[in-house]
Amino acid sequence: SRVIRAPRGTELNAKSWQTEAPLRMLMNNLDPDVAEHPQGLVVYGGIGRAARNWECFDQIVATLKRLELDETLLVQSGKPVGVFKTHENAPRVLIANSNLVPHWANWEHFNELDKQGLAMYGQMTAGSWIYIGTQGIVQGTYETFVAVAKKHFDGVAAGRWVLTGGLGGMGGAQPLAATMAGFSMIAVECDESRIDFRLRTGYVDKKAYSLDEALAMVEQAKVEGKPVSVGLLANAADIFGELVEKGVTPDVVTDQTSAHDPLNGYLPQGWTMEKAAEMRQQDEAAVVKAAKASMAVQVQAMLTLQSRGAATLDYGNNIRQMALEEGVNNAFDFPGFVPAYIRPLFCEGIGPFRWVALSGDPEDIYKTDQKVKELIPDDPHLHNWLDMARERIHFQGLPARICWVGLKDRARLGRAFNEMVKNGELKAPVVIGRDHLDSGSVASPNRETEGMMDGSDAVSDWPLLNAMLNTAGGATWVSLHHGGGVGMGFSQHSGIVILCDGSDEADARISRVLWNDPATGVMRHADAGYDIAKNCAEEQGLDLPMLNKGDI
Amino acid sequence: SRVIRAPRGTELNAKSWQTEAPLRMLMNNLDPDVAEHPQGLVVYGGIGRAARNWECFDQIVATLKRLELDETLLVQSGKPVGVFKTHENAPRVLIANSNLVPHWANWEHFNELDKQGLAMYGQMTAGSWIYIGTQGIVQGTYETFVAVAKKHFDGVAAGRWVLTGGLGGMGGAQPLAATMAGFSMIAVECDESRIDFRLRTGYVDKKAYSLDEALAMVEQAKVEGKPVSVGLLANAADIFGELVEKGVTPDVVTDQTSAHDPLNGYLPQGWTMEKAAEMRQQDEAAVVKAAKASMAVQVQAMLTLQSRGAATLDYGNNIRQMALEEGVNNAFDFPGFVPAYIRPLFCEGIGPFRWVALSGDPEDIYKTDQKVKELIPDDPHLHNWLDMARERIHFQGLPARICWVGLKDRARLGRAFNEMVKNGELKAPVVIGRDHLDSGSVASPNRETEGMMDGSDAVSDWPLLNAMLNTAGGATWVSLHHGGGVGMGFSQHSGIVILCDGSDEADARISRVLWNDPATGVMRHADAGYDIAKNCAEEQGLDLPMLNKGDI
Ligand SMILES: NC(=O)c1ccc[n+]([C@@H]2O[C@H](COP(=O)([O-])OP(=O)(O)OC[C@H]3O[C@@H](n4cnc5c(N)ncnc54)[C@H](O)[C@@H]3O)[C@@H](O)[C@H]2O)c1
Ligand SMILES: NC(=O)c1ccc[n+]([C@@H]2O[C@H](COP(=O)([O-])OP(=O)(O)OC[C@H]3O[C@@H](n4cnc5c(N)ncnc54)[C@H](O)[C@@H]3O)[C@@H](O)[C@H]2O)c1
Repeated sequence: SRVIRAPRGTELNAKSWQTEAPLRMLMNNLDPDVAEHPQGLVVYGGIGRAARNWECFDQIVATLKRLELDETLLVQSGKPVGVFKTHENAPRVLIANSNLVPHWANWEHFNELDKQGLAMYGQMTAGSWIYIGTQGIVQGTYETFVAVAKKHFDGVAAGRWVLTGGLGGMGGAQPLAATMAGFSMIAVECDESRIDFRLRTGYVDKKAYSLDEALAMVEQAKVEGKPVSVGLLANAADIFGELVEKGVTPDVVTDQTSAHDPLNGYLPQGWTMEKAAEMRQQDEAAVVKAAKASMAVQVQAMLTLQSRGAATLDYGNNIRQMALEEGVNNAFDFPGFVPAYIRPLFCEGIGPFRWVALSGDPEDIYKTDQKVKELIPDDPHLHNWLDMARERIHFQGLPARICWVGLKDRARLGRAFNEMVKNGELKAPVVIGRDHLDSGSVASPNRETEGMMDGSDAVSDWPLLNAMLNTAGGATWVSLHHGGGVGMGFSQHSGIVILCDGSDEADARISRVLWNDPATGVMRHADAGYDIAKNCAEEQGLDLPMLNKGDI
Repeated sequence: SRVIRAPRGTELNAKSWQTEAPLRMLMNNLDPDVAEHPQGLVVYGGIGRAARNWECFDQIVATLKRLELDETLLVQSGKPVGVFKTHENAPRVLIANSNLVPHWANWEHFNELDKQGLAMYGQMTAGSWIYIGTQGIVQGTYETFVAVAKKHFDGVAAGRWVLTGGLGGMGGAQPLAATMAGFSMIAVECDESRIDFRLRTGYVDKKAYSLDEALAMVEQAKVEGKPVSVGLLANAADIFGELVEKGVTPDVVTDQTSAHDPLNGYLPQGWTMEKAAEMRQQDEAAVVKAAKASMAVQVQAMLTLQSRGAATLDYGNNIRQMALEEGVNNAFDFPGFVPAYIRPLFCEGIGPFRWVALSGDPEDIYKTDQKVKELIPDDPHLHNWLDMARERIHFQGLPARICWVGLKDRARLGRAFNEMVKNGELKAPVVIGRDHLDSGSVASPNRETEGMMDGSDAVSDWPLLNAMLNTAGGATWVSLHHGGGVGMGFSQHSGIVILCDGSDEADARISRVLWNDPATGVMRHADAGYDIAKNCAEEQGLDLPMLNKGDI
């Protein structure tokens, strides 16, 4: 059994920082403090992997170590397939994961290929080597809960509680984000090791073994005037149904089990984890069938709780689609979180921007935190986030920070970090990236592009253009994935990571890429007709030929 | 009504040849001598368009005229959506056409978006501005017919005949390619203007109004010992069925109606063209239903003719899939042309390479013909093709040449052409491109990637990597399309065009791009396990990390 950790410090294992950076980030994705199931190369989000298998992993590492500054490595669904001559301003790695021709783009076909060793599920940041542990989702979840409180409870979360399912790689962020936003939370999780992991890393406060016990903890917290988060060991479909029967209605209801992957990501009601593991070997169709039936039960319960007044939202795991396919015709009656709370941010290119200190030294991140505050002095909400993050978020693997900022800030911050590397303020280079869940990088009609104003939800030209433009601009690595978040058939998306090595060339590349990338998001939303995006485009001087002709 | 023709000569309308080139090529795609229905911006292949609408066309032109050498224009389904700062070695235009998230990637959803002005069908070379008229398909069709003769008739086509349907933009190449290869042909076409267009441009020899008349012409030709091609005005489904009834069996049977698009591309039996046009306005579902029913009839006839001994092949229009969906369960009993005849070429990166003289002067093409012969002195088949092409192919729009060559030749030819521009042998720059139907650029399980050795037919990581690598290498424009050839849901593919302006920078870009591009095809086929590809990779020194470890 292998244990992978990224090298720290300033000594190079590859020929330059441009290749050392993807090397460390690939390894960091498989760090046992970062990945959910590192032995199986699984990083998060069901079966989201960092490389196709260990042989491919080893060969990627070997190739990165020998790669020259004018060469580019191609990675195809986690396998290193070719090295080609490019140039210094081209990406060092180009990645395509899990992409399937649409007519065949479903889990059945994918799983068949996967079994033959011909595929890999890249999720979003797993196969594109910019996962930073559960922190990566904390701020987004926090912002969403804050927005929920604003919209439904006059901004006051105190004394209220959220019901959810799933404490995995992403879902594990929910209890911390909830308490940061002032809510208590009961998070139903069927795998005790996941709850214990969240307890250990400070993401959840308490563990419970029954609904009554959990409800008592929440009640107690209300009395004490301090929010609490509880990991409840149970099946979400059972507990959601139990609440309906009991007549207890949470204030907010959502879910982050891996419903997007009915074979691997969701435990059917009445099954033990062991039974599920066995059945996955023996009868895949039976697992899928049982899982989707339980999801239908859970979604029915969510709809009932919504009708009783709970603010109910899909948290991006495609559970509504699964229930719909099981005959729950009104599954889409509760909204997805993007149209409900996040889209206005996307209109300004704001999304889950993040960076990682390749030195491994937390001080490097604290210095960048400080720099962000300096450069964005007028945003108390952001300052508050940075303070809370420093205090409450344990780093996993290489120290990293997430911070939702948009078009007007990303390139500025990137250039400042590059300057800090140049003048020695930081001990080693930093990489900057983002989730594929971002403003201009994804087409996902049940999530990021649900209910677009002009009906263009399913048009995926946009993420493809985003990837090509970031390749043209000189990001350090660029990725194009299919099926992230919501599963096979339901999304296409792209990722970037760019290196700040303190050089002038990096400064030029950062200026282009960290501007262009969020700008494509503003462009896409302006094209769809959103005023916030049109105004942002105008303010920031974007060159949008069809809009600049006068109809802005 | 507008008539568009590309400017000729050496005077620039844009700021450099890097932007003049896409400008001329876009316009050339809409030249009435090139495009099938230029008024509707339709270039070929059903509704394959060059720009979304005239407003978008005008704005693309205006933007290209003002575009700087370090800027890149993004085109989204035929609409110019943004201009971004990149650098001199980046593409000037990046294009994504018709891409849809898989679950929604079907004609119904596409047509809905199209009607709202939110989509455009790019086919392969229509929306990517490198269509060169029917010549573009002649050589491929010719090579295929030659391969058919070799495989089934000991290389002797004389006295034999081919039955096919469709004389559109691509299909119109069939009669010329057939007679070049020594076959006679009856091509059934329901639109008389298409037959007349082919007569005028020398692609078809004769016109007939009944099957008996056409068969008599073929018989007569056999007696005279000289192949003839006949355009028969009728419905293909009728005529194919009539042959079955008559007990007459052609030697070869295929079809190139636009079966990939049941709404716009195939005339149902018993309908006039006028009725079809009207019904497309009134009841789309009825048109699709009737068209697919007729396709099933035609495929049934093809299967019967095959069982009677005709060499029967699908010529890449997805008619088998349509028939399958109509209940013809053995529709895939006759093979597609790629696995049957073309794949060995793809294994060496060989495919429909082409170039265009931006000067507009045919002499420029004749000089490049000569250069190709000089640089590839040992290929009599290729020399024969170039001679026949010069003699029998009328240029449409800007003079152009197609020539199937592969990895070992493309970069060499490109650099030589660039040298000819530099030293003034050619009057103006040349652009080099290829079809999306090429070795490394497409995933299309009913056509280019049908029956791959390892079962990876539907994996579309490959064309995405191809597009990203060509972007990284500095092609002049790069495109990513969905649904070309076989229609929505059935393919993903990418295109490139690169400029030879005689500069040293162009030389460096050509060296990278025209090597890398076919190399990705060799890589893809080597990865799938084809020996020809593995040997080619080894001979040409490709750097394929997982294969170079010893298992080649
Ligand atoms: N909203 C967002 O921004 C966002 C971002 C990333 C991922 N996601 C989606 O959220 C989901 C969760 O992602 P993750 O990375 O946490 O996945 P994960 O696979 O790491 O975790 C899922 C967890 O759900 C638990 N679970 C499964 N079935 C259950 C059941 N019936 N009852 C209780 N618990 C159950 C599993 O034990 C596991 O711990 C995925 O669908 C993912 O695509 C959302
Ligand atoms: N094999 C290849 O290399 C290759 C390359 C490109 C395109 N294609 C495919 O070939 C097909 C034809 O392409 P195209 O550019 O010629 O398309 P097109 O739309 O320009 O021409 C199709 C022709 O078929 C005729 N037609 C339609 N229904 C008919 C019927 N029932 N009977 C007789 N004629 C009928 C139409 O009148 C039209 O002239 C498309 O499906 C295309 O995708 C194949």
